[in-house]
Amino acid sequence: MDEASLKKLLKRVAGRHTSISDALAELKDLPFAELGFATVDTHRALRLGFPEVILGQWKTAEHCRGIAQRLAQTGLPVLVTRLQPDKAAVLTEAFPKGVWHPTARIFVVPGRRKLRSGKITVVCAGTSDLPVAEEAAITAETMGATVTRVTDVGVAGIHRLLKRRHDITSADAVVAVAGMEGALASAVGGLAPCPVIAVPTSVGYGASFEGVAALLAMLSACSSNVSVVNIDNGFGAGFQAALISRRRR
Amino acid sequence: MDEASLKKLLKRVAGRHTSISDALAELKDLPFAELGFATVDTHRALRLGFPEVILGQWKTAEHCRGIAQRLAQTGLPVLVTRLQPDKAAVLTEAFPKGVWHPTARIFVVPGRRKLRSGKITVVCAGTSDLPVAEEAAITAETMGATVTRVTDVGVAGIHRLLKRRHDITSADAVVAVAGMEGALASAVGGLAPCPVIAVPTSVGYGASFEGVAALLAMLSACSSNVSVVNIDNGFGAGFQAALISRRRR
Amino acid sequence: MDEASLKKLLKRVAGRHTSISDALAELKDLPFAELGFATVDTHRALRLGFPEVILGQWKTAEHCRGIAQRLAQTGLPVLVTRLQPDKAAVLTEAFPKGVWHPTARIFVVPGRRKLRSGKITVVCAGTSDLPVAEEAAITAETMGATVTRVTDVGVAGIHRLLKRRHDITSADAVVAVAGMEGALASAVGGLAPCPVIAVPTSVGYGASFEGVAALLAMLSACSSNVSVVNIDNGFGAGFQAALISRRRR
Amino acid sequence: MDEASLKKLLKRVAGRHTSISDALAELKDLPFAELGFATVDTHRALRLGFPEVILGQWKTAEHCRGIAQRLAQTGLPVLVTRLQPDKAAVLTEAFPKGVWHPTARIFVVPGRRKLRSGKITVVCAGTSDLPVAEEAAITAETMGATVTRVTDVGVAGIHRLLKRRHDITSADAVVAVAGMEGALASAVGGLAPCPVIAVPTSVGYGASFEGVAALLAMLSACSSNVSVVNIDNGFGAGFQAALISRRRR
Amino acid sequence: MDEASLKKLLKRVAGRHTSISDALAELKDLPFAELGFATVDTHRALRLGFPEVILGQWKTAEHCRGIAQRLAQTGLPVLVTRLQPDKAAVLTEAFPKGVWHPTARIFVVPGRRKLRSGKITVVCAGTSDLPVAEEAAITAETMGATVTRVTDVGVAGIHRLLKRRHDITSADAVVAVAGMEGALASAVGGLAPCPVIAVPTSVGYGASFEGVAALLAMLSACSSNVSVVNIDNGFGAGFQAALISRRRR
Amino acid sequence: MDEASLKKLLKRVAGRHTSISDALAELKDLPFAELGFATVDTHRALRLGFPEVILGQWKTAEHCRGIAQRLAQTGLPVLVTRLQPDKAAVLTEAFPKGVWHPTARIFVVPGRRKLRSGKITVVCAGTSDLPVAEEAAITAETMGATVTRVTDVGVAGIHRLLKRRHDITSADAVVAVAGMEGALASAVGGLAPCPVIAVPTSVGYGASFEGVAALLAMLSACSSNVSVVNIDNGFGAGFQAALISRRRR
Amino acid sequence: MDEASLKKLLKRVAGRHTSISDALAELKDLPFAELGFATVDTHRALRLGFPEVILGQWKTAEHCRGIAQRLAQTGLPVLVTRLQPDKAAVLTEAFPKGVWHPTARIFVVPGRRKLRSGKITVVCAGTSDLPVAEEAAITAETMGATVTRVTDVGVAGIHRLLKRRHDITSADAVVAVAGMEGALASAVGGLAPCPVIAVPTSVGYGASFEGVAALLAMLSACSSNVSVVNIDNGFGAGFQAALISRRRR
Amino acid sequence: MDEASLKKLLKRVAGRHTSISDALAELKDLPFAELGFATVDTHRALRLGFPEVILGQWKTAEHCRGIAQRLAQTGLPVLVTRLQPDKAAVLTEAFPKGVWHPTARIFVVPGRRKLRSGKITVVCAGTSDLPVAEEAAITAETMGATVTRVTDVGVAGIHRLLKRRHDITSADAVVAVAGMEGALASAVGGLAPCPVIAVPTSVGYGASFEGVAALLAMLSACSSNVSVVNIDNGFGAGFQAALISRRRR
Repeated sequence: MDEASLKKLLKRVAGRHTSISDALAELKDLPFAELGFATVDTHRALRLGFPEVILGQWKTAEHCRGIAQRLAQTGLPVLVTRLQPDKAAVLTEAFPKGVWHPTARIFVVPGRRKLRSGKITVVCAGTSDLPVAEEAAITAETMGATVTRVTDVGVAGIHRLLKRRHDITSADAVVAVAGMEGALASAVGGLAPCPVIAVPTSVGYGASFEGVAALLAMLSACSSNVSVVNIDNGFGAGFQAALISRRRR
Repeated sequence: MDEASLKKLLKRVAGRHTSISDALAELKDLPFAELGFATVDTHRALRLGFPEVILGQWKTAEHCRGIAQRLAQTGLPVLVTRLQPDKAAVLTEAFPKGVWHPTARIFVVPGRRKLRSGKITVVCAGTSDLPVAEEAAITAETMGATVTRVTDVGVAGIHRLLKRRHDITSADAVVAVAGMEGALASAVGGLAPCPVIAVPTSVGYGASFEGVAALLAMLSACSSNVSVVNIDNGFGAGFQAALISRRRR
Repeated sequence: MDEASLKKLLKRVAGRHTSISDALAELKDLPFAELGFATVDTHRALRLGFPEVILGQWKTAEHCRGIAQRLAQTGLPVLVTRLQPDKAAVLTEAFPKGVWHPTARIFVVPGRRKLRSGKITVVCAGTSDLPVAEEAAITAETMGATVTRVTDVGVAGIHRLLKRRHDITSADAVVAVAGMEGALASAVGGLAPCPVIAVPTSVGYGASFEGVAALLAMLSACSSNVSVVNIDNGFGAGFQAALISRRRR
Repeated sequence: MDEASLKKLLKRVAGRHTSISDALAELKDLPFAELGFATVDTHRALRLGFPEVILGQWKTAEHCRGIAQRLAQTGLPVLVTRLQPDKAAVLTEAFPKGVWHPTARIFVVPGRRKLRSGKITVVCAGTSDLPVAEEAAITAETMGATVTRVTDVGVAGIHRLLKRRHDITSADAVVAVAGMEGALASAVGGLAPCPVIAVPTSVGYGASFEGVAALLAMLSACSSNVSVVNIDNGFGAGFQAALISRRRR
Repeated sequence: MDEASLKKLLKRVAGRHTSISDALAELKDLPFAELGFATVDTHRALRLGFPEVILGQWKTAEHCRGIAQRLAQTGLPVLVTRLQPDKAAVLTEAFPKGVWHPTARIFVVPGRRKLRSGKITVVCAGTSDLPVAEEAAITAETMGATVTRVTDVGVAGIHRLLKRRHDITSADAVVAVAGMEGALASAVGGLAPCPVIAVPTSVGYGASFEGVAALLAMLSACSSNVSVVNIDNGFGAGFQAALISRRRR
Repeated sequence: MDEASLKKLLKRVAGRHTSISDALAELKDLPFAELGFATVDTHRALRLGFPEVILGQWKTAEHCRGIAQRLAQTGLPVLVTRLQPDKAAVLTEAFPKGVWHPTARIFVVPGRRKLRSGKITVVCAGTSDLPVAEEAAITAETMGATVTRVTDVGVAGIHRLLKRRHDITSADAVVAVAGMEGALASAVGGLAPCPVIAVPTSVGYGASFEGVAALLAMLSACSSNVSVVNIDNGFGAGFQAALISRRRR
Repeated sequence: MDEASLKKLLKRVAGRHTSISDALAELKDLPFAELGFATVDTHRALRLGFPEVILGQWKTAEHCRGIAQRLAQTGLPVLVTRLQPDKAAVLTEAFPKGVWHPTARIFVVPGRRKLRSGKITVVCAGTSDLPVAEEAAITAETMGATVTRVTDVGVAGIHRLLKRRHDITSADAVVAVAGMEGALASAVGGLAPCPVIAVPTSVGYGASFEGVAALLAMLSACSSNVSVVNIDNGFGAGFQAALISRRRR
Repeated sequence: MDEASLKKLLKRVAGRHTSISDALAELKDLPFAELGFATVDTHRALRLGFPEVILGQWKTAEHCRGIAQRLAQTGLPVLVTRLQPDKAAVLTEAFPKGVWHPTARIFVVPGRRKLRSGKITVVCAGTSDLPVAEEAAITAETMGATVTRVTDVGVAGIHRLLKRRHDITSADAVVAVAGMEGALASAVGGLAPCPVIAVPTSVGYGASFEGVAALLAMLSACSSNVSVVNIDNGFGAGFQAALISRRRR
């Protein structure tokens, strides 16, 4: 619809040759973006209750605080991820209600109302994978999920994983966190009746190539219910698991 | 050993027909899996209504037919993926009710009862990505999902994608299929309020390295709701999207 | 602008409380896309005189012909690239005015009016790079450029390149095509006072890794005026060179 | 040896003030470049008004200052790129008219006369890409371009980019800067009627492999008007965009 | 549930002190692992006399000490590998009988009884490979092996290796440690009548890519008796060599 | 120079038929290998009972037959690996006692006396891994091992593996064969009290990169008793497992 | 323009038979290369007696014949490398004196006079490396070298190499050809008192990655006298070895 | 066993003081290397006048000093390469005649007699490549070569290289040092009538991947007279160039 035809439409409205509802319909079908499109992002967050997230690693403490203050005004929870302790101290001062999770390296500013998701289980292969696993767990909890943590259940001692099988089969979504050979994703995928989000971690040395071995293994996992996020991306995995689990209600 | 035979054993002990040490030996040697564990796979499929899948590419037609016949006895639908036309002909003959989807390269033997999932949208960047997109779509449909197909909406003509925005925002889960630079996943992830399963395809040449460029791009996508499956793994993406969508009911 | 406020505006127009020109202004400033955005692609091509392109390699002859017939209706030239001879025969029959360039592997359907660009020089390192160089040259010529071809001037015999220096210094844009070690791009970049588009080719063996050696070398070239396109992407380089050269008029 | 001195030599031969064998020796030993070739670099810079550039990163402050002083004598602007703050302090002292751009990490010594280029738009995906984007912008501005900056318009929120569409369609050349999945280049390429220089940045983690994911994605971008420079090479992109834009005048 | 308690349960059933359905419930809910499986790890270690190992590199000194104290209770030797000197000091204080091997970076808490393995020869190519070679040697010695060390016998001076041929031919298993081009594995493999465990090290620069050159070379070694462990994994190689050598007794 | 001729020389010296300086010269020029060294290979094979192996893949049928005939004269078994069926036909004709194993792609010429090794278990993840697994099994059997085959026990259905646990715990050495994500090696390593030789296979697609994903995963496996051979190297794994198992007797 | 004609021009100037401005024009327009530079290639070949080479692999038989006929006119030998048998037949007909070396895949047109180089030894690891080794040997022989061939002396049987030690120590230059793990280069480098040119071959499978393992190993070889050429580049190695050996005369 | 003791043994046999069987045993058990082989390394160095080299980078100052003192006793020059300044201070104190070359990072202990090689030219592309170029130059000079240094002649300003053409054509061997795109090797190879040793350096950023771009480019260089050493291996290149040049005398 170009300017001319738009003018013509308005003239027809002004001249009462076209009813308001007809004009409205015509305009409503107008290519998508025009009806408030630019604010969709915010709307989506508000409507769905997504927490807002700030990647803290490469930002200054002041930068983190400033963005967090602006985002907190939406009333939604705010997550600052991959945050260093000294910056966390700055945020702790600025947000008295905020909580600092040192293992997960996340600072959470709680939202005004409680979000609600389903049941998530976060499984990790070794204690070195804990920071990434906790990042996933805290993210999911902030989105309202009930999170069960299953740690140190690497495939080399498969019985440790099998003992916790119930925690895997009863979840709405499972996050599987592993470095080194990343075999956990395959094993968990085979046990879980729900979607599994696999997170390769950079834990390992030599031929694990900072997470590449685990990444390739997880992408090649033969369990049909496994999808993968970036190396060390605990936040993304927790976010998606919570998103999936919320679907259930 | 199922519950019945376990009960029988205990009765024999109680009735002194079996000595304690004999019973002990029988129980001790009992492969643990026999206590219900070993049949989990089948049970899970039956209870959840998962279709069974056979990767047809490297198997002979006879092999495909044989496995398919065995799996079809469960009453669940059977998918034979990555199937060549000549093998499909063999299956068509063996399964009069089976359907051959040439673009998706899938042969589907319908199950005895209709499965039910939610609403899936499968988006793909170019016409060359269609086989992978169709593999995802047919898989999801076989699992009972209602699938909307959005094709040829590459990011280089972003308005084509935006015109179909409603199809993305109204789905329970979205599958985003793209080769070359794989940018579609980021754009779709930004529009979708639901989980997005991204599938890199091997479409492209030179520096797209048979899907590696798209794979890395999708793993690095900044949208928090995107997870990734293996290159060209349309089946996995459709399977997971259907699994997620079913959560909603 | 949501539906409610749109309705309100229309009511004000209908009630003559808002003049048509005021309403028009309000609607015109409305986020961008609405005034014909969906057709921008076509508009852009028409206004700028871009030829339309079809990647023929993985399409059937019928598919190529069908798309070409539709695109030819715009009156712009149509390029079908990476075309095999047998498909070219089908197109030759369908488009009596079409021209088949076997080395460049391009079929060109001429447009209704002549396009005009500037002066392009296409330089290539060896005779094996000719198909890619010709793809660039034909593309640029189809866009109206005057193309000078400089072939077989690899850096190992630098004097051959220097003899053709004038052809490089007098162009509006230069396309440098080379496989193996791709050193040509650096040498040409040092001679040219204009932008240089470098095209790595997959010519070479062993450690040239199907064009990767040339690609990395070209990206690492120290000449400030060199940018790079995908391996073997002669079309893209010719297109961009013509685009740059047209700027001059 | 320029034309004048060559003339002088011939005159001395004609006037018998120089023997033929002496003249022969002088001409024979003459490095061919002396016939105008060897000074091409300087000439080109002078005639075209290119700024001179020093890669500061691995040089000492004294080294940078020394080279800059020598180059500044040409009257052209001098750029010292990738400069650390402490070295910038040394240059600030040495060049009172020099300007230090801390984000772009560039020190600029202005030239004696104002250069003139066209309109450049520098688009970047996230705030972390700003140093590279600013490097491009300052470079282009030093070459006389009018630069519009569009920041934080990643593809995950595509509407942010679309709102700035006019800035893209009205430029003579666009620089698209992005890390992570580098999808911005494809989207910008689809909107721009002019050449787009894409700069992958090393921003990202895990599978973005220090810019490799963005690099491969940009090289694989399907927009025909996109070419690519090295990872984090903001200077090269700004230089080429200014070069292209100048063509227009 | 160990054998004793299982026996007790059966007795109660036989004695009618427990009803069949109660026993059934107890057995059915029994986590399968309790039937001896869950303790396999410990049992295996105890029965076979494996030392226990802690990867010390990324753990705190306190963490290392705590785990070591718990493991030491099994009476088996405990190895803490990749340990930094400052952490070793903490362990030295905690374990008066412990021994710190600074080159091998291993801290060993001796077990209560002496283990017994066979004859191992650890060969290394250069002095820079010594830490990895010592890690292998100390590990094997802790497992009761008699270890012969052959150092600095790189293939570039093949006679040095040949002089020590007897040490290679008389061993039960050989560990071959080499960085750079890793050729030692092939040469040793050709001399040894026993299994050879090859360990690539990260020693080298440039195209040795932190051990990748040696790793690929060792995997490609044409000697049929060579298998490979991860880059710098001296512990794994020593462990396996000792395991193999014990087979002999 | 064999022992006999050395003795003869010494006798001539003792008998003064050869001067000391002549004997000295003769001994000094003596190629060292002649003192028994050069025949070590053959000796080793004879003494230890190694079968001889020919890599048939790139050799002509005639070449294979010729070498096999020469090697068969040692009385040891001869293995021709990676043999195509048409070449196998040629060998079958030439060696009436030879056996062609089509799945393993091995032709075996039995030796004159029976070799003796221990108990090997060959485990493989999927039916597509069978050719490599069979190559390992046939190799080990030819070396006298008793081989148990455990097939189709991928980690995605971990219970299938656990059911066969006894076969793993009772072996002298285990060969674990898996493509795709290669997780089987970790799981088997955790169950086995003996050395495990892991064989990555090229089975898989996309991000499994022709066996690289499995290779990296196996090298990164956290089980201390796992070492790895080249992709698809079933022969090497079977050879080493048999070598290890023989140690036990 | 050679010295003679330059002298003539100056004489004409001195004799006033040519005006200064005419002489200036002649000199100024003189393509620098004409001062002897442009013919350097040919001159160098003629003076040094280099054979000319044509890479036949991707050229048509007619193309090969045409170029060879032109090059043969120089009187120097002509090598057509990587030639397929059917093209060789065409050349055999065209050049009655030409010789076809099927293993080396080289067709040689002998030159008019005999070239002379020194002593070269070409060592190769296995019979599969023979084509590349022969390519090196034939090339060196064509350049006049006396070539000793040492084949099948892989490092896994190091004594086979040591037996041929004299052939290595007595050469002017050694070419070491090996695929798989490429260890031969290190061993030969350690024995040779002369420069060693190492040629990795694409022989091998799996982790030898088409010659990459050997290439990296050879580049990482610790022998100071080893340099490397491209994978399978027998021609280059033979050429350089002959060049080095000629130095000696 | 050296010649003297061998003589003594033969005398005892001749004098009947040793029985033939005893002598036989003594000779048979003789490690072959003792017949002159084991000392080949030292002999070769002494006879050919090779300097001895110590890679200083990862050794302690004390370690460097100790080895250097032992090697200096041979009377040959000793090179300690890749040495840090603080360790150089220790060596300077220990070797009053030693010379520390800070740019080349080499410490040279002069030998007792002057070595003699030919003419070497070391060419490098940029000032950042100087440390590696100097390492090559100092190494060659220590071996007695006369070295001409040509610096800062990158291919982007090809005339700078051409001006120094004489230095390239008059050398016995050329070392070409370049980072980034490594094109210098191709250009120098085309100019030089002698062998060229190319050294890729780790200079560059982004897609130059720490020298990989230059390495691949140099391996793919089409000049037949170019061979390549490891990234940053200036020592190796200088060593080989000197070795080649010495051939000439």
